[in-house]
Amino acid sequence: MAKGCLSPSSGAGGDGSGGQERCRSENRPVPEPGPNEVLLRMHSVGICGSDVHYWQHGRIGDFVVKDPMVLGHEASGTVVKVGAGVTHLKPGDRVAIEPGVPREMDEFCKTGRYNLSPTIFFCATPPDNGNLCRYYKHSASYCYKLPDNVTFEEGALIEPLSVGIHACKRAGVTLGSKVFVSGSGPIGLVNVLVAKMMGAAAVVITDLSASRLQKAKEMGADFTIQVKNETPQEVASKVESLLGCMPEITVECTGVQACIQAGIYATRSGGTLVLVGLGPDMVTVPIVNAAVREVDIRGIFRYCNTWPVAIALLASKRINVKPLVTHRFPLEKALEAFETTKRGEGVKVMLKCDPSDHSP
Amino acid sequence: MAKGCLSPSSGAGGDGSGGQERCRSENRPVPEPGPNEVLLRMHSVGICGSDVHYWQHGRIGDFVVKDPMVLGHEASGTVVKVGAGVTHLKPGDRVAIEPGVPREMDEFCKTGRYNLSPTIFFCATPPDNGNLCRYYKHSASYCYKLPDNVTFEEGALIEPLSVGIHACKRAGVTLGSKVFVSGSGPIGLVNVLVAKMMGAAAVVITDLSASRLQKAKEMGADFTIQVKNETPQEVASKVESLLGCMPEITVECTGVQACIQAGIYATRSGGTLVLVGLGPDMVTVPIVNAAVREVDIRGIFRYCNTWPVAIALLASKRINVKPLVTHRFPLEKALEAFETTKRGEGVKVMLKCDPSDHSP
Amino acid sequence: MAKGCLSPSSGAGGDGSGGQERCRSENRPVPEPGPNEVLLRMHSVGICGSDVHYWQHGRIGDFVVKDPMVLGHEASGTVVKVGAGVTHLKPGDRVAIEPGVPREMDEFCKTGRYNLSPTIFFCATPPDNGNLCRYYKHSASYCYKLPDNVTFEEGALIEPLSVGIHACKRAGVTLGSKVFVSGSGPIGLVNVLVAKMMGAAAVVITDLSASRLQKAKEMGADFTIQVKNETPQEVASKVESLLGCMPEITVECTGVQACIQAGIYATRSGGTLVLVGLGPDMVTVPIVNAAVREVDIRGIFRYCNTWPVAIALLASKRINVKPLVTHRFPLEKALEAFETTKRGEGVKVMLKCDPSDHSP
Amino acid sequence: MAKGCLSPSSGAGGDGSGGQERCRSENRPVPEPGPNEVLLRMHSVGICGSDVHYWQHGRIGDFVVKDPMVLGHEASGTVVKVGAGVTHLKPGDRVAIEPGVPREMDEFCKTGRYNLSPTIFFCATPPDNGNLCRYYKHSASYCYKLPDNVTFEEGALIEPLSVGIHACKRAGVTLGSKVFVSGSGPIGLVNVLVAKMMGAAAVVITDLSASRLQKAKEMGADFTIQVKNETPQEVASKVESLLGCMPEITVECTGVQACIQAGIYATRSGGTLVLVGLGPDMVTVPIVNAAVREVDIRGIFRYCNTWPVAIALLASKRINVKPLVTHRFPLEKALEAFETTKRGEGVKVMLKCDPSDHSP
Repeated sequence: MAKGCLSPSSGAGGDGSGGQERCRSENRPVPEPGPNEVLLRMHSVGICGSDVHYWQHGRIGDFVVKDPMVLGHEASGTVVKVGAGVTHLKPGDRVAIEPGVPREMDEFCKTGRYNLSPTIFFCATPPDNGNLCRYYKHSASYCYKLPDNVTFEEGALIEPLSVGIHACKRAGVTLGSKVFVSGSGPIGLVNVLVAKMMGAAAVVITDLSASRLQKAKEMGADFTIQVKNETPQEVASKVESLLGCMPEITVECTGVQACIQAGIYATRSGGTLVLVGLGPDMVTVPIVNAAVREVDIRGIFRYCNTWPVAIALLASKRINVKPLVTHRFPLEKALEAFETTKRGEGVKVMLKCDPSDHSP
Repeated sequence: MAKGCLSPSSGAGGDGSGGQERCRSENRPVPEPGPNEVLLRMHSVGICGSDVHYWQHGRIGDFVVKDPMVLGHEASGTVVKVGAGVTHLKPGDRVAIEPGVPREMDEFCKTGRYNLSPTIFFCATPPDNGNLCRYYKHSASYCYKLPDNVTFEEGALIEPLSVGIHACKRAGVTLGSKVFVSGSGPIGLVNVLVAKMMGAAAVVITDLSASRLQKAKEMGADFTIQVKNETPQEVASKVESLLGCMPEITVECTGVQACIQAGIYATRSGGTLVLVGLGPDMVTVPIVNAAVREVDIRGIFRYCNTWPVAIALLASKRINVKPLVTHRFPLEKALEAFETTKRGEGVKVMLKCDPSDHSP
Repeated sequence: MAKGCLSPSSGAGGDGSGGQERCRSENRPVPEPGPNEVLLRMHSVGICGSDVHYWQHGRIGDFVVKDPMVLGHEASGTVVKVGAGVTHLKPGDRVAIEPGVPREMDEFCKTGRYNLSPTIFFCATPPDNGNLCRYYKHSASYCYKLPDNVTFEEGALIEPLSVGIHACKRAGVTLGSKVFVSGSGPIGLVNVLVAKMMGAAAVVITDLSASRLQKAKEMGADFTIQVKNETPQEVASKVESLLGCMPEITVECTGVQACIQAGIYATRSGGTLVLVGLGPDMVTVPIVNAAVREVDIRGIFRYCNTWPVAIALLASKRINVKPLVTHRFPLEKALEAFETTKRGEGVKVMLKCDPSDHSP
Repeated sequence: MAKGCLSPSSGAGGDGSGGQERCRSENRPVPEPGPNEVLLRMHSVGICGSDVHYWQHGRIGDFVVKDPMVLGHEASGTVVKVGAGVTHLKPGDRVAIEPGVPREMDEFCKTGRYNLSPTIFFCATPPDNGNLCRYYKHSASYCYKLPDNVTFEEGALIEPLSVGIHACKRAGVTLGSKVFVSGSGPIGLVNVLVAKMMGAAAVVITDLSASRLQKAKEMGADFTIQVKNETPQEVASKVESLLGCMPEITVECTGVQACIQAGIYATRSGGTLVLVGLGPDMVTVPIVNAAVREVDIRGIFRYCNTWPVAIALLASKRINVKPLVTHRFPLEKALEAFETTKRGEGVKVMLKCDPSDHSP
């Protein structure tokens, strides 16, 4: 039997009785891998804001937790068993797990945008279970071998890092880019890291919180703006002033209407605004301003084709994600870990699922 | 002296006394071309909605007519004199005129997006004069020789056609594309023409007016939808139903908020919505729907690099823009022509500036 | 039992005793579809030059026929049975078959270039059997439903058409392109068709044979050049002269060294030469001429993501491939069909595998 | 009067009498800037292999020195006078000079590829004079203001750096790329620098010389291969072995036939080989290998749109080009400087043209 950390259905605690009742651990049978699957002994699993949201609210938009669901999708572990058709992995291999696996080879998969496939399985998006547990099986094609010099925690951090990689690729960050990152939470931070790695000449980042901006500085941001009551136009003006020019690229990580507006005003004609943060469904934007300056507005849905890139970078020691991990808990203390994340402490909370292995 | 058709400053008639006082013809000296310019005897000039708007309102957004301004920017004529540095044109050459000419070789020009240059001269955008007159000088680099088998009117129609070319290029229309064109005015129609030319497998177009939809059918639209009180989601649903799938591309030509919303809902995941029509500055849009389906939202500002493309197509007889011209007036009857356009009659009204040449 | 047309191993007839012994029909058991497969009753299968080559020579480059191999990969048929996991097809559906099916979800598949996957299964490339037979099973994801208004033969012709689609997409053919197609065999012809469909303003084609050039004219070529003893530079010069400018794009369909050289000299600076025809492994080319004019040289390997495009075009009646079929034979007369192809008669020879269905 | 360093016409010394007679200094009048030009007091000018080649041989390919020509095109200086139409520069501004200036706004300029314009003026490509002199006038649009924290020598080094930027952009280097750089001369080195800056995960470089490879290591190369008698296939195999996979990108900087062949064999399917080094006009290449693996072969001609990128990077201190400068000479000792470059000593030799300013 393998313990897992679950968020029950949205009915439970739907009376506002709080999250404690909504998260419990449960023993489930160790699964048997299919022909193209591997069974993993989980090692490190990061907690994402979406995990906390499912735990607290039982839903995100149209995705509703109906049956108890195992949480967790930022994960790494060790192969313990492989299906008959698996050739590129063997027991003992340490792997990072890409949580989204398309179930059909549809038009999106065939054209290289499998993240958009409506058939996709995704860890801890209802009704699909996540991997915050002791043993977990996954499609072998979406498990990537970690080199010896990359830790399990780095492997687990590839998931949030992937959001930055996909965002910066969709944004077209390239050599010499000036980039405005809006919002200095974990996703804003990985976008700073990735934009600099892709050759950005200067990155300016905004946030309400001075301490988060301080973290951004440490991760490589060149300039920070602590926003208070500025209008979107005023924020845009400060961004231009600090960079010495308007940024070609804005990566919006808050989802707040005023921030999206600032993102449009701030971006140079011919540039790109990438929407990473999600807020209210309907948002009022200065659409004519964007349109007549040919500022493209592009969203992202998770990521695709990022794990090999991230592993190559981590192996080359060219990118340092370790400062992102600020807290660690054993799987037994998952509730405490979730509470910590909920309180917004630190940056990334990591759960350690293998009591026999204390390596990072 | 060369007669021209002018829209006076926005002060004139600003009391709401109507357009008649706002448009008059005036004799001005025949200009002398500079070293890199040519002097043209104008032949055919189409009337654009923006010409009517300047005539009626004296402004479009931040562009305000302060001094009397010559209207007209959809034009063709004959070279009568060339500047000392001009090598690729000679007197007698028939040319189509690209109305936007960047004044400086700035970053936008150097990267091939000269339409975004803030230094651009543009015919009949205040304070720059247009070419609805007898004689007009223009940068030789932005005058394109017409082959013998392309008429002056076809040459003048390259301007509105260019809006379609630029929009469909920015949209990424390609072989087999399914395209939704929103709005069946002149710009909607040229987008139908261009999308089909680029290999679109099917085009569906919407409008309030049955007669405009009929014209769209004649120009090549495969399906039409006469919209009444449908919600944006309902329009999107009808589009999908007619095409048999969601379109990869939507070209929005109305600027109306509900139409932009329909454009987002209608477009397939991973596709592109191009904003061509301009309406209110601020618009409320289902931004999360667009973002998580990676539907890109891209505006256009006029066009760039379209004249050579259009001339090649017109010369090859692969595209027929002639049905767009529904009315013709001599320059002397410019006011009548403007009134006709203002009433929304027909599609394109053409002014004939050369009394000695009655060819189309 | 289901009859199929086979090319035996390269040993057979390797003494130069000719092709007759090398091609025979054989009864094999009707296969059982796997969970994600469909069983098809084959209808129309075109003969490709590679089929003839395997029949005559038992190998193409490193691909050697060791065991008897069923030929055929330009095919369409009717679903008669579906595997348990198949949802988008049902018995009775008429389908076109994409012959290449990747066996693993590797990096090439994930990035949308599955044709480059080294694990790919491909009909009638040894050791994989083709589908020139009565009953054949195939991956359901690579069978595409034909609309009622698209015939089986059109479905089978999607395969050669796909070579043109992939080539013209890799070439970047777009609105107004001037295109030089080198070689007027079946692949040259589909490139003419596709380039025009994508908006090419003018296509010039070369060949040794006047009758092939005549066919190209009928398929839409604007200009033809019957080459004799011209140097590559002379051919390039003729191309420019006919088009009135150098072509942005050259599609080379012969593989002959002198033609590749002509393709480089002919292509405009900044343009693209696509290599479709394959000749000797090592070729001498004017590499400095290509490099300093930034003429890109790009090959193609079969195709990917072309079936949906082709079906949309065929369904819209925007492309007419029917003139490509010049001969038809029942499966029983396969040898006669192969002999006809070998003699270079006509354009495309079609084998009809279903004696109960005489529709095209 | 302003002294300049000239290479006389190819007639001089054409008897093989050596370079000494071919290079002399000469006093010429200080030029007067035109309306869109600036007059510069030159500061630092690097010597390029092409300068040495013109000095020694009087020609490169079709470019023949007929009249004495001022050498030098890697340069920076100070504005001393501006033409009437210049607004973005003023006397006292320190600038880097982009040596190529298109003379006409032709199709190449309009589409952002002005380096391909046949009308281009280019410093020290006959018949255009270079800027290895005391005073020099240049198009203001192609002079870029240097920030205070960027030295004149860094400004002059933007020219060779630009070759790397243009090559790596054309190659599509991006986050996580594995890159093979062939040849470890100055251009190979800047490609290492730039590829790493653009996010390459690993770069392997080859050369005959151990000392050049040592320099490459210092500039950031992850792996080096000292080639001796290996076949192209063996070199490709070593590259794959060191990287752990085939590189997506190869940047060929030698122009040698065997190296181009190795570049094709080494590059991963679907990747890109960029040709930077130029050797013999005709080269024999394994064209089928490249074509069927869809390895694109792309040349570069100088560069475009690289100065703003380079300045942004230099200003951000994210790239260190200073180790490239290994020798410095005053303009008076130009001959000694050329001899040093000719002997292949060091990496980059810099001439200092302003005796009153000893800053780097």
